[in-house]
Amino acid sequence: MARLVMKFGGTSVADVDRIREVAKRVKARVDDGNEVAVVVSAMSGTTDQLAKWTSDAAPFHDAREYDVVVSAGEQISAGLLSLALQECGVSARSWLAWQIPILTDSVHGSARIKDIDCSEIEKRLGENQVAVIAGFQGKGADGRITTLGRGGSDTSAVALAAVLRATRCDIYTDVSGVFTADPRIVAKARKLDRITYEEMLEMASQGAKVLQTRSVSMAMNHQVRVQVLSSFANSPGTLVVDEDEVMEKQVVSGIAYSRDEAKITLVRVADRPGVAAAIFGPLADANINVDIIVQSVSEDGRSTDVTFTVKEADFERAKDMVEAAKEDVAFDRLISDSNVAKVSVIGVGMRSHAGVAQLMFSALAEKGINIHAISTSEIKVSVLISEEYTELALRSLHTAYGLDAA
Amino acid sequence: MARLVMKFGGTSVADVDRIREVAKRVKARVDDGNEVAVVVSAMSGTTDQLAKWTSDAAPFHDAREYDVVVSAGEQISAGLLSLALQECGVSARSWLAWQIPILTDSVHGSARIKDIDCSEIEKRLGENQVAVIAGFQGKGADGRITTLGRGGSDTSAVALAAVLRATRCDIYTDVSGVFTADPRIVAKARKLDRITYEEMLEMASQGAKVLQTRSVSMAMNHQVRVQVLSSFANSPGTLVVDEDEVMEKQVVSGIAYSRDEAKITLVRVADRPGVAAAIFGPLADANINVDIIVQSVSEDGRSTDVTFTVKEADFERAKDMVEAAKEDVAFDRLISDSNVAKVSVIGVGMRSHAGVAQLMFSALAEKGINIHAISTSEIKVSVLISEEYTELALRSLHTAYGLDAA
Repeated sequence: MARLVMKFGGTSVADVDRIREVAKRVKARVDDGNEVAVVVSAMSGTTDQLAKWTSDAAPFHDAREYDVVVSAGEQISAGLLSLALQECGVSARSWLAWQIPILTDSVHGSARIKDIDCSEIEKRLGENQVAVIAGFQGKGADGRITTLGRGGSDTSAVALAAVLRATRCDIYTDVSGVFTADPRIVAKARKLDRITYEEMLEMASQGAKVLQTRSVSMAMNHQVRVQVLSSFANSPGTLVVDEDEVMEKQVVSGIAYSRDEAKITLVRVADRPGVAAAIFGPLADANINVDIIVQSVSEDGRSTDVTFTVKEADFERAKDMVEAAKEDVAFDRLISDSNVAKVSVIGVGMRSHAGVAQLMFSALAEKGINIHAISTSEIKVSVLISEEYTELALRSLHTAYGLDAA
Repeated sequence: MARLVMKFGGTSVADVDRIREVAKRVKARVDDGNEVAVVVSAMSGTTDQLAKWTSDAAPFHDAREYDVVVSAGEQISAGLLSLALQECGVSARSWLAWQIPILTDSVHGSARIKDIDCSEIEKRLGENQVAVIAGFQGKGADGRITTLGRGGSDTSAVALAAVLRATRCDIYTDVSGVFTADPRIVAKARKLDRITYEEMLEMASQGAKVLQTRSVSMAMNHQVRVQVLSSFANSPGTLVVDEDEVMEKQVVSGIAYSRDEAKITLVRVADRPGVAAAIFGPLADANINVDIIVQSVSEDGRSTDVTFTVKEADFERAKDMVEAAKEDVAFDRLISDSNVAKVSVIGVGMRSHAGVAQLMFSALAEKGINIHAISTSEIKVSVLISEEYTELALRSLHTAYGLDAA
């Protein structure tokens, strides 16, 4: 007998018919003799509708009230799935975050889980009752409803799996697992049977949308075995596991990309101490995430060019802030471009293999793709390229690293 | 400075535009220097949609899960109204039942309020913050969300007004007040400036849909001044007050009707002790409300005919149960008719005036309308007639009792 956490995303519970399908899938696990806790997202479209209403009501909204409104979506699907389970003869009850409780900090809109008291749920799992838990939500230190940020239901599921010491946390989604690259772009992409936490973390943070980044780092920290699989098929998905569970380490396991990038270059920045702080301090204060930063020496030797990237949503604001700091920073002019994409190759095998970056650069050069900026970590190389080359770059790199399906 | 409870129904908060209108109306009261608590229903249509999903998921549903799902509607509108208030510069926050808490019994789907702890809300009212409270919901003794039954937001509002010792509880709706009769049927119906609790209670329980019966009896018991008024106009509505606040008592204040009636007649019931218990005991056990009961002696003197009415939703079930009890009850045959309506004339002045019922009977006789059954209380006379005569009966009685607008 195992204890499973099963998480179903918005498309898996899009309407009552699909909720009934989910109920059947849960029942199958229960009938196999497992203890099952289920985490549900809102029916797809619901969160967007609710979020739109909040911005219609108040363009710059109080995040506490936003949380009250949008968390209703998961409340509805949790109740409906409990009913559907009961209807097929499975004992079940819904749990809202405040009832468990799932305690978070009070950072509304993107709260972090502090503590979960699973004692009552564990007792009932032992009595063969399925716990249906509304994902995405928590109870803040202020006693109000919080939400965990977009995709937060993944985090709810992993956190519950950790506290419940679950055998596995199965994340049901609309794709059949984690792929070597986005199969909508790279026809020869392969589904991975296993991927390490570190790789999954880089994949998620470099643009792969299959799992929320925070949920992966939580799974890694608490050693929760996560499986990503399809809620519309019956095949096994991708297991996210510890590095020592992966026998043959790939040099490169996968290629991720993100079009949500914008580049800002400051030309002829005075080359003196404190300049970087003058540029990036205000951006950090304004909660703007800066990703890649490249600094190059100019011809005259007395000034440098600084290039950095931000998310497209922050682009205009970032430009305005840097322009406002022009006196402090003392640069010549600002060049910007939002038609850029970031492509990243990821693999734990990189640690022990040289030449991974070099292969990337030459493969791109061969196709005439210019590299605007480079960023590397221990298990990842990212390059910034013009957005129009995204598909070409992904396919070329997929072939170059030997990832193509036979 | 006064303390007001304002309650807005589903049509008043039907979409974000209307919610903004409600916010303006609340702001006007705040700007007048009042402390304001607002109770909101779900956006119109939402509760029906949510209820439909629950019955799609499970035809015979667990009322606890039903409550989880449908209560989301008021949660959404409470959050949205708080945002709209903030947007027009009014300090506001939403309150869900479990946060206050509004404690109820655990009769899910039609829970009763046990206790409300308003201390935190009162403190914030004093700090000029508007409390926006999700109506219709409570927290049961089982720690789960309960709902108060259809129209339960009226009850939430009156209960809060009682606990907050509010100067008045204003119920905003899509009509401009309480009328002498349904103005859609009786063109000459007049809006009443005042009506007594007792009259309002009879009006509500005899079919007038303007206020939920339970909310009126709660207002009466706790001496809450209630005003019914339009959320789309700016004129005063109808005040529901104590009898001693009404100077000139009308013999008849209003005429109510209900088409939701069905009649069952048992012919030749054995006339012996215990028969009524044998008929009505099983119905009571099955939670079927019996309204009018008439017993008449048959020609032979050894048996009686028993006629009673039930709501149309209970009609088939009631017939089946009585047929099942045929041996115990010993009746000849059962005649039933769901094409009946109940028309009631209501007025506290009846207590001191004779001939009120007689006027009703003769006015109906004059139009050739046959009376199937009669039921009276201290301030009400109800008759059961064929449904097709409803409009004619209402108009004739409205004229006969001198209620027509000049």
